[in-house]
Amino acid sequence: MGDVLAAAKPEDFRAPNPEDTLYLELASGRVVMELAPLFAPNHVANVKALVREGYFDGSAIVRVHENYVVQWADPDGKREIKRAQRTLPAELDRPAEGAPFTPLADRDTYAAEVGFSAGFPAARDAASGTAWLVHCYAMLGAGRDVAPDSGGGAELYVVIGHAPRHLDRNVTLFGRVLSGMERLTSLPRGTGALGFYEKPEQRVPIQRIRVAADVPAAERTELEVLRTDTPAFEALVESRRNRREEWFLRPAGHVEVCNVPLVVRPKAPAK
Amino acid sequence: MGDVLAAAKPEDFRAPNPEDTLYLELASGRVVMELAPLFAPNHVANVKALVREGYFDGSAIVRVHENYVVQWADPDGKREIKRAQRTLPAELDRPAEGAPFTPLADRDTYAAEVGFSAGFPAARDAASGTAWLVHCYAMLGAGRDVAPDSGGGAELYVVIGHAPRHLDRNVTLFGRVLSGMERLTSLPRGTGALGFYEKPEQRVPIQRIRVAADVPAAERTELEVLRTDTPAFEALVESRRNRREEWFLRPAGHVEVCNVPLVVRPKAPAK
Repeated sequence: MGDVLAAAKPEDFRAPNPEDTLYLELASGRVVMELAPLFAPNHVANVKALVREGYFDGSAIVRVHENYVVQWADPDGKREIKRAQRTLPAELDRPAEGAPFTPLADRDTYAAEVGFSAGFPAARDAASGTAWLVHCYAMLGAGRDVAPDSGGGAELYVVIGHAPRHLDRNVTLFGRVLSGMERLTSLPRGTGALGFYEKPEQRVPIQRIRVAADVPAAERTELEVLRTDTPAFEALVESRRNRREEWFLRPAGHVEVCNVPLVVRPKAPAK
Repeated sequence: MGDVLAAAKPEDFRAPNPEDTLYLELASGRVVMELAPLFAPNHVANVKALVREGYFDGSAIVRVHENYVVQWADPDGKREIKRAQRTLPAELDRPAEGAPFTPLADRDTYAAEVGFSAGFPAARDAASGTAWLVHCYAMLGAGRDVAPDSGGGAELYVVIGHAPRHLDRNVTLFGRVLSGMERLTSLPRGTGALGFYEKPEQRVPIQRIRVAADVPAAERTELEVLRTDTPAFEALVESRRNRREEWFLRPAGHVEVCNVPLVVRPKAPAK
């Protein structure tokens, strides 16, 4: 993989759009998330509206469920929502047409076809003509109650364990963590049902969440992401499908969609 | 899943053999691991020999690699090995014949056939007539250097992220964590190359490791594990393949081998 990245050209990388990037600030530092308006435009718009009215500032991580999710929300459920919506209809899939797609040749347990769309792990189904994001590690979703339209973005989760792919098309995914995953995964696990923290003082305070576009340039985390529609990405997939490093005795010959690294690195300084 | 477990009979569960169970003691508490002599008899015997000569007592967790592994070893590489072996030939697979196998009907990205053998996630290949353990979350392996026979059990790792299945048949798996995973997964990530801790004081001390059979009965962690060769287990797999809880809008219809929970619970008191 090092060789593939060393050979990649500057144009194989893209800078995430600051308007579709969130910064979650914890005492331990920043978690950077990229949003996916192509797949969940209403959730992206609503979460940004919540962020911009300060809904999450001073809220908390309330649930750390071992091998599953980290979740944050208004801990007391009493926060006013001013301009954003409290709930939205779920956005579980979209027409495949119009969504770029780099298919992965390897078979998948859950979907007829998997691959990558605009930098996110995704799946497609020719019969229904739909595409959707899939629950890989680090994916960002909007929690909901039993009713499909009971989510909307006021409760968010990030996948921290083995990909819970049974959630695909059951709950709205709308982004993924680009950096800072370790600030979420190393948190103490909640000991209550479903991994909720049992005592208020166990909750992990969220200082604030901001849209990167609203943050002064000097305070931004400048990242670049390997495009998923380039020969460099194809070479990367192949380098993971068949590991050629001396250590490997038997290249796998296959790679699972959630095992393909979606490479993120600090942005190269301008020359 | 609750319904399946409520309907399970006492004989659907088994108590792990104390002679094939390890207790790893950290300041935060105990991690219980079950060994798999069926798949890696030499590694199991050697790790038990290392444990019994106190090789790991006062050693440390030296590596916590985000979305990959937690690893422990002699931090300074200077410990004497008395009766155990320092290295062993890798045990990457075994004859399929003689290993019980409950196949999973669902397709897998990596192997022609996956399923469960003696309580462990496993795979088989009819062409070669072999079976092997697979790298799911919580699996326990023996690290090695480049040479296939450079492992043996003096450096051990547990999978803490999305299943790194490309490691299957490249490195010896010989057990899995039954309880206490959260004591490993919530550790701070190492910031050095490959997730190694950069400073000695960051390492996480291991108080000791013992074979459960050597621990007084009153100090044991009594667990029971759902057998993987019973109708109750089949029902559990189906309950995960097609989630019927009211929350789910669209049952997946499939389940991946590493997404099938291998149920462990405190042993029911004798009546």
